[in-house]
Amino acid sequence: MFTRVKSAVASFMGGMMPGGANGEHPSGSDLPLRFPYRRPEFLGLSADEVECSADHVARPILILRETERLPWSTGYAEVINAGKSALNEDQACCEVMRVKRRSTSTRSPSRRRRSSLPNGDGLSVKDDTDASLEDLPFHYWALFDGHAGSGVAVMASHLLHHHIALHLQEVMDILATPDLTPPTCLGEEPLNQHLGPAQKGLSRAVSLRGAAGAPGSPHTPPARFFSEKKVSQESLVVGAIENAFKDMDFQIEREKSVYNISGGCTALVVVYLLGNLYVGNAGDSRAIVIRSGEVVPVSSEFTPESERQRLQFLAYMQPQLLGNEFTHLEFPRRVQRREVGKKMLYRDFTMSGWAYKTINDDDLKFPLIYGEGKKARVLATIGVTRGLGDHHLKVHDSNIFIKPFLSCCPEVQVYPLSQSEHGADDVLVLGTDGLWDVLSNQEVAEAVSGFLGNCDPDDQHRYTMAAQDLVMRARGVLKDRGWRIANDRLGSGDDISVYIIPLMHGNKQT
Amino acid sequence: MFTRVKSAVASFMGGMMPGGANGEHPSGSDLPLRFPYRRPEFLGLSADEVECSADHVARPILILRETERLPWSTGYAEVINAGKSALNEDQACCEVMRVKRRSTSTRSPSRRRRSSLPNGDGLSVKDDTDASLEDLPFHYWALFDGHAGSGVAVMASHLLHHHIALHLQEVMDILATPDLTPPTCLGEEPLNQHLGPAQKGLSRAVSLRGAAGAPGSPHTPPARFFSEKKVSQESLVVGAIENAFKDMDFQIEREKSVYNISGGCTALVVVYLLGNLYVGNAGDSRAIVIRSGEVVPVSSEFTPESERQRLQFLAYMQPQLLGNEFTHLEFPRRVQRREVGKKMLYRDFTMSGWAYKTINDDDLKFPLIYGEGKKARVLATIGVTRGLGDHHLKVHDSNIFIKPFLSCCPEVQVYPLSQSEHGADDVLVLGTDGLWDVLSNQEVAEAVSGFLGNCDPDDQHRYTMAAQDLVMRARGVLKDRGWRIANDRLGSGDDISVYIIPLMHGNKQT
Repeated sequence: MFTRVKSAVASFMGGMMPGGANGEHPSGSDLPLRFPYRRPEFLGLSADEVECSADHVARPILILRETERLPWSTGYAEVINAGKSALNEDQACCEVMRVKRRSTSTRSPSRRRRSSLPNGDGLSVKDDTDASLEDLPFHYWALFDGHAGSGVAVMASHLLHHHIALHLQEVMDILATPDLTPPTCLGEEPLNQHLGPAQKGLSRAVSLRGAAGAPGSPHTPPARFFSEKKVSQESLVVGAIENAFKDMDFQIEREKSVYNISGGCTALVVVYLLGNLYVGNAGDSRAIVIRSGEVVPVSSEFTPESERQRLQFLAYMQPQLLGNEFTHLEFPRRVQRREVGKKMLYRDFTMSGWAYKTINDDDLKFPLIYGEGKKARVLATIGVTRGLGDHHLKVHDSNIFIKPFLSCCPEVQVYPLSQSEHGADDVLVLGTDGLWDVLSNQEVAEAVSGFLGNCDPDDQHRYTMAAQDLVMRARGVLKDRGWRIANDRLGSGDDISVYIIPLMHGNKQT
Repeated sequence: MFTRVKSAVASFMGGMMPGGANGEHPSGSDLPLRFPYRRPEFLGLSADEVECSADHVARPILILRETERLPWSTGYAEVINAGKSALNEDQACCEVMRVKRRSTSTRSPSRRRRSSLPNGDGLSVKDDTDASLEDLPFHYWALFDGHAGSGVAVMASHLLHHHIALHLQEVMDILATPDLTPPTCLGEEPLNQHLGPAQKGLSRAVSLRGAAGAPGSPHTPPARFFSEKKVSQESLVVGAIENAFKDMDFQIEREKSVYNISGGCTALVVVYLLGNLYVGNAGDSRAIVIRSGEVVPVSSEFTPESERQRLQFLAYMQPQLLGNEFTHLEFPRRVQRREVGKKMLYRDFTMSGWAYKTINDDDLKFPLIYGEGKKARVLATIGVTRGLGDHHLKVHDSNIFIKPFLSCCPEVQVYPLSQSEHGADDVLVLGTDGLWDVLSNQEVAEAVSGFLGNCDPDDQHRYTMAAQDLVMRARGVLKDRGWRIANDRLGSGDDISVYIIPLMHGNKQT
């Protein structure tokens, strides 16, 4: 059955299904797979079930079995695309991690990380020689939306949380001490403690113009006369997540020389630690909190349109990245040769509005950012501007690399969960773009609140049922060869993955 | 009296009052002044009154005379600093402009602008050979906050609105036609009109991957098969304001070779055109709407802290701009030589959180962004990151220019004034940072709403009285040699300038 569907879909989709996308060796790569293709481990599917799930015609919605449990009774559901790629390129991971506290190490983090690179083989961040100290737990949920192959998404679903754990371990001693302001320099007293009251007063009056130690400054008194910027514990967790994404991306790049790791992926992760939810997003997935039926957005999306000015700025400063084939200017459509000398609408990296310019030969190049909404592309190639992987991705039939324009760095937002009470129907919804392309935040909030309101509040399976309901509303039903949702709108033909995380469990956690 | 105060202040402030700041020839410049120093034209002050207003001890609050009127009965008040500079370096301008519609010109805008560069001598944007067409009015309010001299602020207060008028004239034919979608290319029919229904259907199905005409694309059908991005009339006004700022800055740079134009300035402008308020901001001034007592922010500030990641990204990509004296990394304080090898908190352009890194010799350089809040500086020199001028500003005693890190481009926000009714107490408040450094949005809203609520609603001078009240609340009173405001907090020692613009007048305007 699966094979028949696959070949029917493949012939329907034509060139859109490269060999690399189905998890086998892509044509041209003799390297071994880094990790075999899979569905999320917590679904507990057999190989046969995985194969059956990849039915692009029936599009069965997979849900967490009642016997399986995710932390906080988290709900989960997913469905495969309508033929865009042979396999479901979304991936998901959910773990409760324990990071061991240890006394501050003087080893350099880069040295240590190099020797204990996450390899997925039951990596532990605990240091067994230092067994007297207590562990600190964190909860982790993640969605990865792959493109041009499933390799990077599968690899990230195996390893990203270990990178986060390694970075959290670096600062765990600090995080585990309530109210401790992180020291600016490890292994010494805060410098302010050396100052007498008179000196402290002085530090406030000093102007930074010609600041002590600044280039050209006539006097160079000790730097201790300057006040220090106070850094919060929360910002250490944010920094840990940011740097974990960078390390993950670097590991993918390095291991691509010895493994077949296809494509790239977006990443949306949630870390719950010490009363806060940290939502890190690189790509076009989205997270919203629904509280008392109201929407609180906790992520933003990174697309060619939302990041246009950053990308144009980069191209303006490093024009060689455009290979003399693209222009950093944006036009509302392609410029044609007969329009040279006429005036056309344009905008550059400094503008959010539009103006007219006289068209010249340079403007005939293809625009760096082109298209609208879901069709917007960078370098006519990719529709998402942050994520992991894509190191070898080039503009078709050229030597222009896409990667310099992509960022692997997430934006991390902090939701102070334990600062307020949450009820049984207050949830965090995470979804890949397949969900949000067809349902608005408000529609999702109404659907989830309506569904949960009709459930037995003691049924811990209700969040998975609500996730299933959401996926159903976004996929729709097959009607006249097309997927249709409410009000006869088009359903999503993309992979769709949804977590519904109840927030009342955060009330009693530490 | 003025002379005595000035010299007392000058001796008190020591080196902080360079010769160039007082509007006379700065030491080293024999060039003529571009414009003489002045206070806002609409205040109608005599030369004597201007001199008396510059009393850093009494700090008299200047207000619009009852006999003078600004459009919409706009209120205005200002006060000089407490000795930071000899003159009040804030400037203001308010005008009702009329731009003549004309048929679309085929002349290139750059050619035209070059020949009719605003020179402040009663420049007109009307084309008298084309007298049959109707004018379109726009209202304009602006605040400029100068630094390191008053030359650029005075020049911008004379000329920026003319640059805006020139750019609006380019698109006035389009703006004057209600509901017209701006044509992508001037002088030809929209391309979509050439398409039959079948072709239009095709254009929706085309994928941008390997898009027609994209580099490496196998086929190159005519670009007309692609849908065009629709551009709104509002975004043409936004683009006009953005490009007017760029032209203003370019004119300052060019004329600095023949005139003495000292310093730089922030710019906050409001343009009212066809029912919308356009708020353009480059710097750390601020605009808020107060509606039914509620605050609606309509600008954001551009400072070393708010623009840290943009500046670090630029420095990372163009390290030569740092002259081997600065590092693009941020640390909570200066790194000391004895800390090399230890781990210290840092963040780079990708991070909003913090992490620890092992300090090396390179980290001993001065950080590109340093200091907190009002003391934050770029290259140890400047505390604001957008504005006009500063072309020759360098790091003290070095050859490192600041200008590459500054942007002259405003962020323009649109407030759709005529889409809802506004009452007599609904206002737009514009203030330089002297106001907002000591009063929060909420405090300003409460003060203004409270004040206006106690006035005769028919007294059109009430907005100026409210502006005076605000400046008074921000300046405070002199007590024990210091300026004190409510709750014994420190008053602002900076120049303070405030407009209060009633919004009900927008109800009946076109």
